[in-house]
Amino acid sequence: MLSFSCDYMEGAHPAILRRLADINLDKNTGYGLDPYCEQARQLIREACGRDDAQVHFLVGGTQTNTVVIDAMLRHNEGILAATTGHINVHEAGAIEACGHKVIGMPSQLGKVDIDALEQHMALATAEFNAVGWEHYVIPRALYISLPTELGTLYTLAELRRLRDICDKYNLFLFVDGARLGYGLAAPACDVTLRDLAQLADVFYFGGTKVGALFGEAVVVLNKEIRLTRGLIKHRGAMLAKGWLLGVQFATLMTDGLYWDIARNAVNQALRLRQAMIDKGYQLYIDSPTNQQFFVIDNDRLAVLQQSVGVDIIEPVDATHTIIRLCTSWATTDEQIDHLISFL
Amino acid sequence: MLSFSCDYMEGAHPAILRRLADINLDKNTGYGLDPYCEQARQLIREACGRDDAQVHFLVGGTQTNTVVIDAMLRHNEGILAATTGHINVHEAGAIEACGHKVIGMPSQLGKVDIDALEQHMALATAEFNAVGWEHYVIPRALYISLPTELGTLYTLAELRRLRDICDKYNLFLFVDGARLGYGLAAPACDVTLRDLAQLADVFYFGGTKVGALFGEAVVVLNKEIRLTRGLIKHRGAMLAKGWLLGVQFATLMTDGLYWDIARNAVNQALRLRQAMIDKGYQLYIDSPTNQQFFVIDNDRLAVLQQSVGVDIIEPVDATHTIIRLCTSWATTDEQIDHLISFL
Amino acid sequence: MLSFSCDYMEGAHPAILRRLADINLDKNTGYGLDPYCEQARQLIREACGRDDAQVHFLVGGTQTNTVVIDAMLRHNEGILAATTGHINVHEAGAIEACGHKVIGMPSQLGKVDIDALEQHMALATAEFNAVGWEHYVIPRALYISLPTELGTLYTLAELRRLRDICDKYNLFLFVDGARLGYGLAAPACDVTLRDLAQLADVFYFGGTKVGALFGEAVVVLNKEIRLTRGLIKHRGAMLAKGWLLGVQFATLMTDGLYWDIARNAVNQALRLRQAMIDKGYQLYIDSPTNQQFFVIDNDRLAVLQQSVGVDIIEPVDATHTIIRLCTSWATTDEQIDHLISFL
Amino acid sequence: MLSFSCDYMEGAHPAILRRLADINLDKNTGYGLDPYCEQARQLIREACGRDDAQVHFLVGGTQTNTVVIDAMLRHNEGILAATTGHINVHEAGAIEACGHKVIGMPSQLGKVDIDALEQHMALATAEFNAVGWEHYVIPRALYISLPTELGTLYTLAELRRLRDICDKYNLFLFVDGARLGYGLAAPACDVTLRDLAQLADVFYFGGTKVGALFGEAVVVLNKEIRLTRGLIKHRGAMLAKGWLLGVQFATLMTDGLYWDIARNAVNQALRLRQAMIDKGYQLYIDSPTNQQFFVIDNDRLAVLQQSVGVDIIEPVDATHTIIRLCTSWATTDEQIDHLISFL
Repeated sequence: MLSFSCDYMEGAHPAILRRLADINLDKNTGYGLDPYCEQARQLIREACGRDDAQVHFLVGGTQTNTVVIDAMLRHNEGILAATTGHINVHEAGAIEACGHKVIGMPSQLGKVDIDALEQHMALATAEFNAVGWEHYVIPRALYISLPTELGTLYTLAELRRLRDICDKYNLFLFVDGARLGYGLAAPACDVTLRDLAQLADVFYFGGTKVGALFGEAVVVLNKEIRLTRGLIKHRGAMLAKGWLLGVQFATLMTDGLYWDIARNAVNQALRLRQAMIDKGYQLYIDSPTNQQFFVIDNDRLAVLQQSVGVDIIEPVDATHTIIRLCTSWATTDEQIDHLISFL
Repeated sequence: MLSFSCDYMEGAHPAILRRLADINLDKNTGYGLDPYCEQARQLIREACGRDDAQVHFLVGGTQTNTVVIDAMLRHNEGILAATTGHINVHEAGAIEACGHKVIGMPSQLGKVDIDALEQHMALATAEFNAVGWEHYVIPRALYISLPTELGTLYTLAELRRLRDICDKYNLFLFVDGARLGYGLAAPACDVTLRDLAQLADVFYFGGTKVGALFGEAVVVLNKEIRLTRGLIKHRGAMLAKGWLLGVQFATLMTDGLYWDIARNAVNQALRLRQAMIDKGYQLYIDSPTNQQFFVIDNDRLAVLQQSVGVDIIEPVDATHTIIRLCTSWATTDEQIDHLISFL
Repeated sequence: MLSFSCDYMEGAHPAILRRLADINLDKNTGYGLDPYCEQARQLIREACGRDDAQVHFLVGGTQTNTVVIDAMLRHNEGILAATTGHINVHEAGAIEACGHKVIGMPSQLGKVDIDALEQHMALATAEFNAVGWEHYVIPRALYISLPTELGTLYTLAELRRLRDICDKYNLFLFVDGARLGYGLAAPACDVTLRDLAQLADVFYFGGTKVGALFGEAVVVLNKEIRLTRGLIKHRGAMLAKGWLLGVQFATLMTDGLYWDIARNAVNQALRLRQAMIDKGYQLYIDSPTNQQFFVIDNDRLAVLQQSVGVDIIEPVDATHTIIRLCTSWATTDEQIDHLISFL
Repeated sequence: MLSFSCDYMEGAHPAILRRLADINLDKNTGYGLDPYCEQARQLIREACGRDDAQVHFLVGGTQTNTVVIDAMLRHNEGILAATTGHINVHEAGAIEACGHKVIGMPSQLGKVDIDALEQHMALATAEFNAVGWEHYVIPRALYISLPTELGTLYTLAELRRLRDICDKYNLFLFVDGARLGYGLAAPACDVTLRDLAQLADVFYFGGTKVGALFGEAVVVLNKEIRLTRGLIKHRGAMLAKGWLLGVQFATLMTDGLYWDIARNAVNQALRLRQAMIDKGYQLYIDSPTNQQFFVIDNDRLAVLQQSVGVDIIEPVDATHTIIRLCTSWATTDEQIDHLISFL
């Protein structure tokens, strides 16, 4: 059945599967010390324009968020995030399992409210100075997602403001890029990869949702962040056959494949969006990326669900529901045409 | 100098010091296995009307909150608390250090907003059922403080509502009683110790702030909570000379000393409150317990601070500040008279 | 170059890659809730003769050991293991990162010394009873590996003795089966899968080392072990595209593929072993499984290493070294013939 | 009844109780920011000859070991200790609860076997270099106790050897001084406080066992160890009425009281020791400090226990038992005379 319920329902881009099959019976060195990983690291450094970047490959998103945050924080330090941020609501306490508090910040459409953040840090700093820092969780990092869990984007100006706040208050800026391609490849995005690699202290390229079987590529740009191989192993996050990650990211980062397939996903989402609007569906969030959110009449939804898988977010009222439709690197023109035929 | 800046500025009630001196050179068994602890446990059980209660003595508040919460929660479970609750803002991440998330709830004057709590649990349960419980931190306990950090009290009717919500959603109800005496002994409080011992799953008698040198007496009423001696040691919270705690609580629980000294503190606070109001000071919070909060003109504050120690909470505007004045078991009529003379 | 340095140098059995390619663009449900996982679970339950078993699929060994141990232990409980056991020496502290102590037991050739274990438990129990259990880490589980890290096997009689000790002292018996196939498929092994599924409380089928790209299938046989989906997510161990694990294990467990390829590895190892002995090489450990250990003259080693990758364990003396040669599911007759030609 | 079963059966030196009573109703600043703590810190720095030392006061031994170790280690780092060391066997997993592995080293009479330690570090370093450091717990600190749990002492030459090993392998040297006075004040000890303050990276003065009601004074000598007030609070180890600790240590460190009372304990122990030997009792360990260990005939033990409390360590054989007799700062000539009358 046609389904747009999430963006990780398919395996991997066929070029990746072919590449894995090609080398399947070769004898490889384990734990990410193989030439494919090295190649992928180099391609990523070049794409970022940061020869000094450290690059690590991990398997999944929760694991990546956990390892990065554990590398950034010590003891009584915590990480700020939108109350709707993935680490605050969708990790089953994996961050806290490493001993770290997530400090929820007001947010709008998935984005941290920058004014509220600035005010929070000013007030908190005054309070800590007055009462004594030892009584508090000290904010030491800021987590944002690009695009956010609600498909929205920070502008370059907003990212720069966040960078300034981080500089002022000694915070690491960590950008969760589980859907990075679907953000940076969006026509509406004015942030480039190189901008990001200058502004963030650490970010990652999501593979799981953007063309890989699995895998996230973490790019560490600030040497104060001790994201070591020992920490990765310590958190159970070191893949024995690490070359599986290297091959995937080397393939994705070659000839712009990552960006091409991401762009396709966004374009398909924008077609879908326009078709929905044309048919009279109501946008819930005006998202410029691969996730589209609508408010839909429950009767219409029931009909739609007979032919199309959708993601139910929550009821708005007795007769309307918020739904999400996602495209991915694997979404085809035919699938969108097919969907439009059901609207 | 006269000071009302907090309620743990003095040592212990003289009866406690005398008792400690009396037995100072006796040879005692360590780790809380002495007869004083046993006597104190029995006195507490009797006062609570709960022969089945387990009672443990710990040294301080952060430690007690940590041990109790660690006993209640496993893995991906979390604890709900007012955003202003002590465990959410004043423990330097000690709860998270044990791997547990504190889930902030809207609050009013230090009290969990019960309607918001009920709505949160209903929505969360619906979401967990729809998406899968494994993606979330599962609320498994509710933390409240009595009185709250802002001096306010839950009514018996409110406590019963909270108990019903806890029953409905399978939550342990944990009452932080760091200032328990100053709550239950307040004339405005319609909750009795026996009510509390029926409604809560676990609570504690604060000693540090109510007449002891140090110490908190945890009362575990629900046998599902595995607060063991092994856990206490595991968290570094077992006092070698445990009888120091036993002697203190046995003294406090004998002949109603705990309640008498707590009542004195509240009465002194209410005198102070009335005098402040009479002198035209403005209440910030209408507190019926030993902590009193006022909005004060900065010029007046500057004068007052020359003679009296107060706790600065935060500025209201350019010319006014919120302050806190606390009484304690040690506050005397003379001290209040003296304060009034400065108003 | 020919290499026998470890047993996870190749990708996956070709049947697995084909199967993954077949369904690559299908739309699958995430997080292990897909029909492939369900099929694999059922096949595993049947093979074990335990319809009541819970089966979970995880990505790697450290992760699996961590999640299983975290499910078994609480607070001040610990896990016994051979001092040479993987969790004691090769996990970079991942077990301790979850708060759990590994209690090292004397061992012989990778196997827990059962007499020493029994004596330890008797003495520890006496000491705990005398001094108080709260001062100690309480052993609550026993970890063994089958085959061990040194290629050796427990006999059925030994497993039964371990089971009796576990019953006597209230220990969970956890069998690390990272190389389970290479153990149970060995001609010298008198333990069957069904024996194991009766004697262990929890064990796992290693996939990473036995034919899969990655993946370990955990079989929980004791309902007291709360290995939940929530815990898996909490530890960052839930794979988004869980069907990748289901497909792999369903393929391995169909028509005995897992056992066939494991048997091949052991047979190749035994050929290699015999050839080495025939050429005058000295066994270091008499291993009946896919890992073979030799003491080799350093000059001879230098020559061998020009043509064959081997795993250096450690020097014996100035002129001799212990090496390990591993076969795997992918080892061919030709590779062994080729190796023999270099001896 | 006369008892020598441990060294923390009494309250505090009377001078301490008097001092606490004197200031009982003064109004003090909390959390260790009072003048008594500052005075005690300064006295300790002077006694150590280290003006640059940071001094923190904590409540008990397990807590202190936990906080110090947590300050020294990160992630995949561990701490070496004698297998008989307190942190390895008597903390109920409190160290592991903070995520850190204790790596057991061979020991003799409570002391780390220095040759074995040196060999372990050499072999481990070689292995880590060969296989990759990320697979191991990296030793980052060495824990010793002075005197040890078995009453024995390291010589100055031994401490210097340990320092050299720590320097060579980048280990912090942490000296558990729960009984520090009973070690340094022993006639047989050739280590001075100033030696210790030059050789250790961090150590502590035990108060609980040496004259205080409770309390340990941690002396941090290496600035790389981030033992902050925030960490202390984070681990639930910050005492609200911190001045209770300051007053105690200021009293103990004034006019050599700590050393005088410690010397008394050792002298009484040596009298007891000689009397036991004279009566034909057999030493189990030749201890120069306040703990004395004997092998005793069970019949004789039964008689002795009618009049004297002793600590049973373990049976030697069917008819003999190892016992421990401890003196403390509170032991009097009369008590020893009394004991001798029962021998």
